Amino acid sequence: MAMGSGAFTLALALALATYVIPEERKCQLSGLWRNELDSLMEISAVRDNGDFQGKYLTRVTLAGSCAHASPLRGAQQQPSEGGWPTFAFTVRWDKFSNATTAFTGQCFMDTGGKETLTTMWLLREAVGSLEEDWKATRVGRNVFTRKRIRKGKILPSLSPSCEDTSSPAP
Amino acid sequence: MAMGSGAFTLALALALATYVIPEERKCQLSGLWRNELDSLMEISAVRDNGDFQGKYLTRVTLAGSCAHASPLRGAQQQPSEGGWPTFAFTVRWDKFSNATTAFTGQCFMDTGGKETLTTMWLLREAVGSLEEDWKATRVGRNVFTRKRIRKGKILPSLSPSCEDTSSPAP
Amino acid sequence: MAMGSGAFTLALALALATYVIPEERKCQLSGLWRNELDSLMEISAVRDNGDFQGKYLTRVTLAGSCAHASPLRGAQQQPSEGGWPTFAFTVRWDKFSNATTAFTGQCFMDTGGKETLTTMWLLREAVGSLEEDWKATRVGRNVFTRKRIRKGKILPSLSPSCEDTSSPAP
Amino acid sequence: MAMGSGAFTLALALALATYVIPEERKCQLSGLWRNELDSLMEISAVRDNGDFQGKYLTRVTLAGSCAHASPLRGAQQQPSEGGWPTFAFTVRWDKFSNATTAFTGQCFMDTGGKETLTTMWLLREAVGSLEEDWKATRVGRNVFTRKRIRKGKILPSLSPSCEDTSSPAP
Repeated sequence: MAMGSGAFTLALALALATYVIPEERKCQLSGLWRNELDSLMEISAVRDNGDFQGKYLTRVTLAGSCAHASPLRGAQQQPSEGGWPTFAFTVRWDKFSNATTAFTGQCFMDTGGKETLTTMWLLREAVGSLEEDWKATRVGRNVFTRKRIRKGKILPSLSPSCEDTSSPAP
Repeated sequence: MAMGSGAFTLALALALATYVIPEERKCQLSGLWRNELDSLMEISAVRDNGDFQGKYLTRVTLAGSCAHASPLRGAQQQPSEGGWPTFAFTVRWDKFSNATTAFTGQCFMDTGGKETLTTMWLLREAVGSLEEDWKATRVGRNVFTRKRIRKGKILPSLSPSCEDTSSPAP
Repeated sequence: MAMGSGAFTLALALALATYVIPEERKCQLSGLWRNELDSLMEISAVRDNGDFQGKYLTRVTLAGSCAHASPLRGAQQQPSEGGWPTFAFTVRWDKFSNATTAFTGQCFMDTGGKETLTTMWLLREAVGSLEEDWKATRVGRNVFTRKRIRKGKILPSLSPSCEDTSSPAP
Repeated sequence: MAMGSGAFTLALALALATYVIPEERKCQLSGLWRNELDSLMEISAVRDNGDFQGKYLTRVTLAGSCAHASPLRGAQQQPSEGGWPTFAFTVRWDKFSNATTAFTGQCFMDTGGKETLTTMWLLREAVGSLEEDWKATRVGRNVFTRKRIRKGKILPSLSPSCEDTSSPAP
């Protein structure tokens, strides 16, 4: 992904606008996803070896209409016998946090074709010394569903001048 | 890293042989690390934006002298005020497992210059349906210390024909 | 709780039948709860020091109408300034598992009076040696909502002769 | 345990003074344990059904010689075929924290008779609303070894007038 790390751009919005839900029951990571906290993530096409990348947008913060787009990178485990793939990825909150996050999860599809990504994550904060290491790691769970974009629709513009320094929500 | 995913090669061993421990008290992720389970990981040079990659070798299995080198990818969080960096990475166990693993951690250096990576990880196994999702994720902790390689020493050759299908230990 | 550990009894069912949802917005742990996996738990009255006990019933297994009632014990953290209480409890799966489970969570009530228990848990399995300790702990999340019992209603009788040895779902 | 919840007393010290390490390789939870953070826990005798209770003392805080004794309660899983028992317990930090902690673990004994408790824990903090629930849970690992008390020795007196309100370390 050769885009700047600042924010979603028009190019991305247009790319998503032509996304088509696959008809067979095969879970695909690529596309736009939303979790129950209204955070968004966009995964670009998965490479043959399973590597993928994309952007993670924490939900709009309480302060206003500010959102953060952070780069994510990960790998999908090639399913050996046609099962649902597992995956893992990391997010680098580079502008507004001392923390890093890693997710692991699996993609499921129900009989109606609805896809679900169930994930668990670790959020690691920086601490000042080894003695404080015990309290540095949070754990949680997020469930993502595919966010469909109608043809021609464009994502609301997200401010790239975001100065919020609060902790990111997975 | 353009090497094959099979195993450590002589090229890697030679590269490590010239590794020099940094003299100042600045934690560096690059190099060879060993954890308390005798698993090894080798992190190649960290890029300016924090991205890094490398290889993860689970410890020799009970079955014999077989070891697995799996690709890892991650990101280091640029420390804002000179503190110890946090990081996160994922490992793709591509040949011998249905699982994926994600680590988060932080690098510390004590007054004597000894570096420690404290990490926690999630190990996600594939399950057959959403109903079994609850049992798919394991959690644990690993502590890595830098494994020094004396000049001229070469890592023991690791069998690339490994057929073990057991679960990988972080 | 002086009841046998085998299963829910008529006495319990009658006790629950007279349960009344509190009218003020104060979260109370006591009562019957159901999570998204259809597991049930019944918490008897919380003592003044915060200690409580009860029963945990894993969902009906695939094999049939068999359910397990396991004793739970825990403690509620007295909220210092009227906030929602946190709590933790352990479940002893004494008849059908080598594992133990511990939950931590918090009770919330929305403006409509609906109560939610958000919990995370660790499920620890027995392993044969310290070397296998790394893989012994699973982690997950469960959300419980209060299961209302209408006056006079009686819980379906649950078989006390359950012989299933499968792993319990939290 | 009918003792006050304030702190260790002379009665406890004397009880521990006569503790004898068991000679056979059978892991026993009862006794005094210390973890790598120098926190102490004392588990009183385990009942026939596996229930136990005791006290947990977080390490001395930076502020001085102040320590906290908090009540713990839990259950040991009766090993089915003579394996090492698993266990879980909760700690109620009643005087100085908004948080609750739950541990799960297993007891191991090496060939020399040295006992180790490997545990993982969840530390749950109170948050103000469901929207903040995602950040409320920390996870970590602690390893305990038995702290032997020589006959006649008495534990150093621990101040019961502790006023520290900092977060407890597991």
